Amino acid sequence: MQHPETGFLPGPRYTLPGTSGGPLAGLSFAAKDLFDVAGQPTIGGNPDWGRTHPVPTAHAWAVQRLLEGGANLAGKTITCEISLGILGYNQFYGTPPNPAAPGCLPGGSSSGSASVVAAGLADIALGTDSGGSVRVPASLCGLYGLRPTHGRISVAGLLAQAPTFDTVGWFARDAATFARAAAVMFGETLPSPTAPGGLLLAEDAFALADPDVAAALQPAAARLGTLLGGLTRMNLGEPGELETWAGQRNILQRAESWATFRPWIERENPTFAYNIARNLAGGSAITADQVAVARIVRRQVVDQARRLLEGGAILCLPTTPFVAPPLGLPLPEIDALQARIGITTSFAGLVGLPQLNLPLGTVGGKPCGLSIIGWRGADMRLASIAAALEAAAP
Amino acid sequence: MQHPETGFLPGPRYTLPGTSGGPLAGLSFAAKDLFDVAGQPTIGGNPDWGRTHPVPTAHAWAVQRLLEGGANLAGKTITCEISLGILGYNQFYGTPPNPAAPGCLPGGSSSGSASVVAAGLADIALGTDSGGSVRVPASLCGLYGLRPTHGRISVAGLLAQAPTFDTVGWFARDAATFARAAAVMFGETLPSPTAPGGLLLAEDAFALADPDVAAALQPAAARLGTLLGGLTRMNLGEPGELETWAGQRNILQRAESWATFRPWIERENPTFAYNIARNLAGGSAITADQVAVARIVRRQVVDQARRLLEGGAILCLPTTPFVAPPLGLPLPEIDALQARIGITTSFAGLVGLPQLNLPLGTVGGKPCGLSIIGWRGADMRLASIAAALEAAAP
Repeated sequence: MQHPETGFLPGPRYTLPGTSGGPLAGLSFAAKDLFDVAGQPTIGGNPDWGRTHPVPTAHAWAVQRLLEGGANLAGKTITCEISLGILGYNQFYGTPPNPAAPGCLPGGSSSGSASVVAAGLADIALGTDSGGSVRVPASLCGLYGLRPTHGRISVAGLLAQAPTFDTVGWFARDAATFARAAAVMFGETLPSPTAPGGLLLAEDAFALADPDVAAALQPAAARLGTLLGGLTRMNLGEPGELETWAGQRNILQRAESWATFRPWIERENPTFAYNIARNLAGGSAITADQVAVARIVRRQVVDQARRLLEGGAILCLPTTPFVAPPLGLPLPEIDALQARIGITTSFAGLVGLPQLNLPLGTVGGKPCGLSIIGWRGADMRLASIAAALEAAAP
Repeated sequence: MQHPETGFLPGPRYTLPGTSGGPLAGLSFAAKDLFDVAGQPTIGGNPDWGRTHPVPTAHAWAVQRLLEGGANLAGKTITCEISLGILGYNQFYGTPPNPAAPGCLPGGSSSGSASVVAAGLADIALGTDSGGSVRVPASLCGLYGLRPTHGRISVAGLLAQAPTFDTVGWFARDAATFARAAAVMFGETLPSPTAPGGLLLAEDAFALADPDVAAALQPAAARLGTLLGGLTRMNLGEPGELETWAGQRNILQRAESWATFRPWIERENPTFAYNIARNLAGGSAITADQVAVARIVRRQVVDQARRLLEGGAILCLPTTPFVAPPLGLPLPEIDALQARIGITTSFAGLVGLPQLNLPLGTVGGKPCGLSIIGWRGADMRLASIAAALEAAAP
C-alpha cells in the first residue's frame, strides 16, 4: 500500500457548509470515517464493513452539532480498521502521514483526523477514543485532543466498538480553537482555569515513559503547577499496578469489542489485517469470569480516582510513553509499543474521566504530549486550563 | 465477492504444452496456485503473499513431472489462502463452483483444482494435502483424489504449510486416468489390486458420518471387500479417540503452520479472512509442551497403524462425514463443519499414510467419497484397487 498524501479518505472529498453565523463560523472540520455523514458510506477503515452496511441517511450527532455550530465539513478521514489500532496503520486506505514527524506513524485509530489537523487541512477534526484513539494521535502529531467524560457526548451515528469505553473527541492545533469547539460540543461557556485541589503529577506514569519524553514534559508540568497553585508528586497505584490496570482494561474492552462485532464477523467472515483479526479472536476467547474480575478491578480504580480527583484536583501524566515511531516496523515491535501505550491510557479509560492532551513537549523534533485529567464532567475545566496555559506561554 | 465461473484463477489462463509423446499425451492438467510455474506469480490465494514474493523462475517438481509426462498445463487454480481452509472459501479470488453440487462449497484448500476437473476443464489437477486439502474436495466434488505417502513426492517449488504434514496430490474424474497420472508421478507400474490383509472397515469413523453418508458408502465398501477377499469391521481407536487424535493433529499442524508463516506475518502483517487469521493466531499460542504431548500421541497412533496395516491390509472409511454444504453459511456453522472433517482426515495425516478418495457414494444427488488407506508406500496399490473396482463396476 502506497502511503496517502493526506489523512482524508482517497477519492473526491465530500464537503458540507455549516450553518451560517454560528460560533464556529470560518472554521473547517473533518470527521473520522466512523461518523455517519448522510449520503456517504461509513466504511470504518474496512471495505467489508462499508460493503455490508447501508449508507446512512442522517448525520452522526457530533457532525450535526459542528455543522449547526457553523463549521464547514472538509471531508472524512482515514481510521484504523473499525477503530482497532493505536498507532495509525491501515493497509486498505493507507497509513496517514504524520505532518509533525515525517516518516513516522501518526497514532490511531483517529489517524486521519489528527493528520489533517496537523497538516493545516482542517481546523478541527472529530475522532473517537475507546482505548486512546484521540489521545495517542494528539500526542504523536502535536495537537490538542480530548477524550471527554464517558457518556457526556452522544455516540449516536457512530460505528461503535466497546460501549463502556467509547467516546467522541476532537483535535485542534491550538487551545483557543479547541476551546471554541468544546463550547459548542458541550453547550457550556469556559469556567475559570482553576483547580481547588491543585495539580497532581503521577510519578508512576512518568516512570513508564522514555526518560527523554518524561524530561521533555517537566517544564510544562511545572508551568501547570504554577497556574493551578501547587504541584504534588504522587503515584496512581502500587508498584506495577498501572500495568495490571491496563491488562484488566484490555480484557473489558476486547470482550466488549467482540460482543459488538461478533454478529457481523460470524455472518461475513470479513477481511482484516492479521493483527486486527488476532485481537478480535483474542476477545472471543475471554471468559465470563475474566470479565467479572476485571469489572471488580475497574470499580476499585474508580473509587481510587474519586478520592484523588473529585474534590477538584487535576492530574497530569505523559499521554504516550514515546514519540511517533517510524513507519515500517515489524509486528512484534508494533505489539510491544501498543502494549506500552495501553498502560498510560488505561486510567482515564477505566474510570471514564476526561483527558486532554497538551502538545507541550518535543524530543528530537517530534512532539509528545502532557495529559491533564479531571474528575467526571471537568471537560470544560480542562479546556480552560489549556487555553490559560497557552495564553500565558513564554 | 462474486463467485467465479470456474476454479481457474481470474484473468487470462496461462498454458504450457507437455513434452510430446509422453505417457500422458492428450491429457490436460491444472495446478493449484501453491505450485510454482516459471514466470507466473505464486499468489497462494492471498494477494499479500503474491505481492511480497518473487515470481518463480522454475517449475515446481510436480508441474515439471506432469509436463515431462506429456500432459499440457491448462492453467492455475484458486486455492484457499496459503492452503488454510478445508471447505473451499476464498474471499479474494472467489469460491470456485462445485460442478457436482451446484450452489455448494467445493471443499478445499485445493478447491479450484477439484472444481476444474469436476467441470471437465482439465483431466488432472495438482493439489496439496496437509490436513485434507485433496481428500476433502475430492469427496465433495466426486473425484478420485490422493493424499500420497508423506515424503514420497517432492514438495520442491511448493508454497509450504506444515512440513510434517504437507503432501502433493492430484485429482481425476476416473480411476484409469488417475492411475495413468500416478504411474508418472511415482515412476512405477500398477501392481495387482490385492491386499494380503483384506479390507478393514473402520466402524468408529463410519459412526462419525451423517447416517445417510455412511449408508451410501456401504455398497462400495462391500464391493471392495469382495475384491480384496474379505471385510473385517473394526475400530481404529478407543471410544472418542478419533476426536482426540484430531485435536493433537491440529496442535501439530497449526504449530508448524505458524512456524512457517510467522516471519512473513511479522514482517508484513498481511490481510486475511478473519477465520484464517484467527487460526494462525491460535497456532502462535500453542506451547512447546502441547507440541511435545502431541508428538507422543502421534508416535502412538503410528505404532497402532503399523500393527493394523503394515502386513498389507487396506482400511476404508468415509472421506468426509457429509456431502458438500451450501454456500453462504455463517462462521459458527463453518467452524463446526471444519471440526467434523478434521476427525476423519487426521488418521492418515498423523501417520503419513496414503489415502485415496473413491467417488462411489451420493446422497441427495451430491457426491460423497469412500477412502482407502494403505501402509506407507502403498500408493500405487491404492490406484490399482481403484482401477480394478472401476473396471468391475456393475
